[in-house]
Amino acid sequence: MGIEIERKYLIYKDKWQPKDEGVSIRQGYLSTDKERTVRVRTKGKKAYLTIKGENKGISRMEMEYEIPFEDATKLLDNLCHKPLIEKTRHIEEHLGHTWEIDVFFGDNEGLIVAEVELLSPTEEVKLPDWIDREVSDDKRYYNSSLCLKPYITW
Amino acid sequence: MGIEIERKYLIYKDKWQPKDEGVSIRQGYLSTDKERTVRVRTKGKKAYLTIKGENKGISRMEMEYEIPFEDATKLLDNLCHKPLIEKTRHIEEHLGHTWEIDVFFGDNEGLIVAEVELLSPTEEVKLPDWIDREVSDDKRYYNSSLCLKPYITW
Repeated sequence: MGIEIERKYLIYKDKWQPKDEGVSIRQGYLSTDKERTVRVRTKGKKAYLTIKGENKGISRMEMEYEIPFEDATKLLDNLCHKPLIEKTRHIEEHLGHTWEIDVFFGDNEGLIVAEVELLSPTEEVKLPDWIDREVSDDKRYYNSSLCLKPYITW
Repeated sequence: MGIEIERKYLIYKDKWQPKDEGVSIRQGYLSTDKERTVRVRTKGKKAYLTIKGENKGISRMEMEYEIPFEDATKLLDNLCHKPLIEKTRHIEEHLGHTWEIDVFFGDNEGLIVAEVELLSPTEEVKLPDWIDREVSDDKRYYNSSLCLKPYITW
């Protein structure tokens, strides 16, 4: 069990280029309730079931369990809300912080989001120059919202 | 991953008596969608996260993962829909089948339900004499329904 603290930003697409292939993520939701989201995710060759509580500012309760890849595939294909979310994740280190840059495909094609995880809500972050504006509080960018109302429909 | 096939019955309360203490079950739901229920359960000293698909007749897809007891307690207390379901489970063998008899407490006080798991939907079951009528198809008796509309409110 943990508390997740993260900030989410849009990026300037002309200032950022992926440095590697990244890792493929396919995810869907068994619950999109904001008080109790339940996410199924395959990430590369691994798979996870993740439960998150409601956001309190930029913090939220999170529990994650690794599950068999085949189970996750069956859950994604048969049980999860559609459309699924498909994206490629790139990792970049910048001045002591690790950034996850998610390039979306499918029904969220065109969206690129960068997230940084923090140790405390007040921790300061030096922003890379390809960071545009923060969208941590914009519910439309929650992955659980992108599955109900994908980016291409905005 | 498995397919669960079971039949559910009410019992004659004057014809059945528990033979032992049984095991305490406390459970709640992160999703009560009938297409994708997500259940958190503590059972004795163990804890499980269970995902079930929609009933197809008396069959449904089911996946279950053991999780740390403390995680389950936090999920039940903080994230699951209320009220939680509290019951004591008794196991009885009868002519080649294993019966689970659930005696409910709390908001479902007064309800006792017996379930038998089958290998195929057409498998015949010899019913114990304390079995009353079958309620497999009655959605009110789904545990996920009992959490939304408990027995004492019927």
